[in-house]
Amino acid sequence: MYRNHTCGELSKTHIDEKVTLAGWVQKSRDKGFMIWIDLRDRYGITQLIFDEERSPKELMEKAKILGREFVIQVTGTVIERVSKNPNIPTGDIEILVDKLTVLNDALTPPFTIEDNTDGGDELRMKYRYLDIRRNPIRENLIFRHKVTMSVRNYLSELKFVEIETPYLIKSTPEGARDFIVPSRMNVGQFYALPQSPQTFKQLLMIGGIDKYFQIVRCFRDEDLRADRQPEFTQIDCEMAFVEQEDILNTFEGLIHHLLKEIRGIEVGKFPRMTYDEAMRRYGTDKPDIRFGMEFGELNEVTQHKDFNIFNKAELIVGIAVPGGNSYSRKEIDKLIDWVKRPQVGALGMVYVRCNEDGGYKSSVDKFYDQEDLTKWARITQAKAGDLICILSGDTIKVRPQLSTLRMELGERLGLRKPDEFAPLWVVDFPLLEWNEETQQYHAKHHPFTSPKPDQIEMLATNPGNVKANAYDMVLNGNEIGGGSIRIHDKDTQALMFDYLGFTPKEAEEQFGFLMKAFQYGAPPHGGIAFGLDRLVAILGGQETIRDFIAFPKNNSGRDVMIDAPSTIDSAQLDELHIKLNI
Amino acid sequence: MYRNHTCGELSKTHIDEKVTLAGWVQKSRDKGFMIWIDLRDRYGITQLIFDEERSPKELMEKAKILGREFVIQVTGTVIERVSKNPNIPTGDIEILVDKLTVLNDALTPPFTIEDNTDGGDELRMKYRYLDIRRNPIRENLIFRHKVTMSVRNYLSELKFVEIETPYLIKSTPEGARDFIVPSRMNVGQFYALPQSPQTFKQLLMIGGIDKYFQIVRCFRDEDLRADRQPEFTQIDCEMAFVEQEDILNTFEGLIHHLLKEIRGIEVGKFPRMTYDEAMRRYGTDKPDIRFGMEFGELNEVTQHKDFNIFNKAELIVGIAVPGGNSYSRKEIDKLIDWVKRPQVGALGMVYVRCNEDGGYKSSVDKFYDQEDLTKWARITQAKAGDLICILSGDTIKVRPQLSTLRMELGERLGLRKPDEFAPLWVVDFPLLEWNEETQQYHAKHHPFTSPKPDQIEMLATNPGNVKANAYDMVLNGNEIGGGSIRIHDKDTQALMFDYLGFTPKEAEEQFGFLMKAFQYGAPPHGGIAFGLDRLVAILGGQETIRDFIAFPKNNSGRDVMIDAPSTIDSAQLDELHIKLNI
Repeated sequence: MYRNHTCGELSKTHIDEKVTLAGWVQKSRDKGFMIWIDLRDRYGITQLIFDEERSPKELMEKAKILGREFVIQVTGTVIERVSKNPNIPTGDIEILVDKLTVLNDALTPPFTIEDNTDGGDELRMKYRYLDIRRNPIRENLIFRHKVTMSVRNYLSELKFVEIETPYLIKSTPEGARDFIVPSRMNVGQFYALPQSPQTFKQLLMIGGIDKYFQIVRCFRDEDLRADRQPEFTQIDCEMAFVEQEDILNTFEGLIHHLLKEIRGIEVGKFPRMTYDEAMRRYGTDKPDIRFGMEFGELNEVTQHKDFNIFNKAELIVGIAVPGGNSYSRKEIDKLIDWVKRPQVGALGMVYVRCNEDGGYKSSVDKFYDQEDLTKWARITQAKAGDLICILSGDTIKVRPQLSTLRMELGERLGLRKPDEFAPLWVVDFPLLEWNEETQQYHAKHHPFTSPKPDQIEMLATNPGNVKANAYDMVLNGNEIGGGSIRIHDKDTQALMFDYLGFTPKEAEEQFGFLMKAFQYGAPPHGGIAFGLDRLVAILGGQETIRDFIAFPKNNSGRDVMIDAPSTIDSAQLDELHIKLNI
Repeated sequence: MYRNHTCGELSKTHIDEKVTLAGWVQKSRDKGFMIWIDLRDRYGITQLIFDEERSPKELMEKAKILGREFVIQVTGTVIERVSKNPNIPTGDIEILVDKLTVLNDALTPPFTIEDNTDGGDELRMKYRYLDIRRNPIRENLIFRHKVTMSVRNYLSELKFVEIETPYLIKSTPEGARDFIVPSRMNVGQFYALPQSPQTFKQLLMIGGIDKYFQIVRCFRDEDLRADRQPEFTQIDCEMAFVEQEDILNTFEGLIHHLLKEIRGIEVGKFPRMTYDEAMRRYGTDKPDIRFGMEFGELNEVTQHKDFNIFNKAELIVGIAVPGGNSYSRKEIDKLIDWVKRPQVGALGMVYVRCNEDGGYKSSVDKFYDQEDLTKWARITQAKAGDLICILSGDTIKVRPQLSTLRMELGERLGLRKPDEFAPLWVVDFPLLEWNEETQQYHAKHHPFTSPKPDQIEMLATNPGNVKANAYDMVLNGNEIGGGSIRIHDKDTQALMFDYLGFTPKEAEEQFGFLMKAFQYGAPPHGGIAFGLDRLVAILGGQETIRDFIAFPKNNSGRDVMIDAPSTIDSAQLDELHIKLNI
């Protein structure tokens, strides 16, 4: 061992002890007659001291030439510091060094190894191994480890079994976003990397493993939005002989436990909200309920006048921005521009200033009187001093637009507090989703998701309204988990395929293997999967998942550190019996 | 919840309780007036009873038509059994059913769901989800979970951080056995799946994470020997600021802990043996030291006579088979045939019977007298009643041949006891390995493995004899883990590349990225990786890793259950800009 203590543990109680430390030179201050060096390792920083009076000349000379990030080993005596540093645990002491060994020198790093570095994103990613030396990234990775240990121990206590499912699986026709892997031994054939272990966890249920989980990598070859990764980690879970209520209770328990153990926070029973209610009140299926600004639907109190934009709109809906009346005209104009950006997509915004005197001033005063505006204020729960922002148009468009505005204003107003945690369940998701492109209904979750038993017949008459036994767990405006109760009997399954427009042949081709397994005694079952990267980031009070992944990829799916993906030589392609087609 | 008890937990203390159970019909005995059903779930078996006198007629009728593996839910009263079954925990009771719900019917399974099934390997693999219902496989998977939890908790306690490294990495020129993955977003470029996270764990050390581990999937596209898998799981570990001794102690602690916690076995300090000694005494670098039959080298006592086969051999070496003198001539001939099979490859075998009267009878009595044979017996530690088996030839061939014979005989003699655990460290592995094909030395481990510091200069004069700071952990004749101290300074590294015959340009091309990282302050570091699949199998007292993997592949790398790999449609290939070349 190159050390007998770490750089984070020495204190006054160690004074006069002889110690050996090893680590990196964080910084060096050379006063000529005296040199201080901050020595850093994973655990902290300890100050080393060399001085003319107490240190041999050769040692002083050796200390003088140490550069930033040199790796050194020192032996010396713990002494009390003259000027203490109350900001670090080792701030009372320093080491009077009597032996110094340079274990490795170092080039000057391309950015400072400090909490607030001068390195930009690309540079930090390119030298990720140096970025990881910085406290925030290192602490994030250690935090992630704590979370996964806590998850594993909690589920394990509840008799869940972690079972590894294969990474080299089969590509399915609907797996358009599968990464595929040519097989050398099976010429012309390919494996696929799993987008999730869905099939395998259902097979484990059929196999009698009634409580399964796995912290597992998943892969999706899709165009990456900001903060998505082509490989990501899920906490994947499934249970047999359960109903929706059992799943909700079990995994509410898990998140409860994590918030308590990891953050020391007790939250009460999670509120539940139907999908329809979430859409109505917040315009999204993943509402951030840490703050209000709930939607007020204004159709009834806006469509009686000559304002055509509202009159032809399917939905007119507003939110009250607390204290928003203080915004200048210019600020409001900027807000209107903001919602008109293509990323939001609104055509315009109507606003109402709620004056301190109880009166209202709106951008549509030509059409509406104080009596109208008073109703609007009541419905949006606006108070004197607030600003009401109103969007209108097709429900399917206007809700996400106003939700985006609500989240943005919540952020600007400091209402999205990183240390506050407001989980909720969103339940009763629609079973089907209308696909504009194919002009057909598709399964929103997957075709094995169970419809509400009493709504199966509605599939024939009003498919879009049929709800599923499907649920999401939402935390601070993020979907952190989602799942469903699966169909386990073949009659319901056949009915579903029929309604979804599959011929028996198509169903057989695409899902035959799993359907066959279902014939050998499938128990009722259901599950949930949590996005670990996001969950960890949110628990850490942040939203950038990249800072919680050791070696993330950029938005083009590239690892800029190792420069992957990359071309490979033709001999290797030959051996796999494939060639490029470009 | 479909149940309030499991099928493994009811006993006399529950008598008269009303309970609800759910599970699979294991078997059914219909005596006409009385029906017994064994209901099975993950936790055990509980007997259900229906009888003419106490059960309604409809219920009896319903119970009569239940087939094997039907999934049912029953409610009933716990009653004491008339004829108890002391072999199962629930054997004192049965359930007098008053409600029966068929949750799912089942086709007759293609093999019996019993501990000793009638299903062959292929059939079991094809219906693996049914195979998993069998106790031995299910218990193996649960056992594996226990082992991984124990590993994680132990290492976590020691401040190791589990960090997930990427699965989509870069293919390297020497990565001939890489699985590659075409990237859709980066046309003409490929990721590779990692053969191990070696590079990343070394980068984490450079990044200041001084104790890393990961239970991680690794991939190797090679022709599969029996009991190898194209994807396998490693316990991958690395530490910084350590020397070999620290790694050995830390991970000896891990295996110690596992043996104690998982098997209740205390083993003492692990013996250590150099590679050279292991080869000399057992003919292999992974000796099974649960039994003796050590090699006796006989050159000095055999090459003084006219027996040419021995005289021209590089090595003459024998083992004493305990009690082997009882073998008939026919049995010995079969043994000789066995060592001459191509899988072993010996050209012949000389044997010596050690008679009970102290005399010897050998197959080479023409050449050697009793005095010679007495010496042979002394060197091979043969006793009266034993059989000495002697092979001769080139050292490099004859050692593995005799080792194979030793293991086979150890097995046949019952000396390889599954409940006995004899771990050891094999240390001081050679740094280099001679490659017949390229007529060059290659790094045995990888080119970053550190040579013994005092032997670096010998690289120039006698490279084959240079030893490395490399070690294997061996358990019961299996290599369960291996690792090394890495080179961390660039001078030694440059020297190594030079000796290995790399030009600076080649070294840069193949290892440039990691060498660059090494320039920014790499600490001394080293590590080890354990093969989890094998470790779990051995801890479970078995040697077939396939029985400890939920969904294994066969020797052609196929998953016969999901039928992967498989062809994919041309549209998908087009989108990836590749085409088949067959």
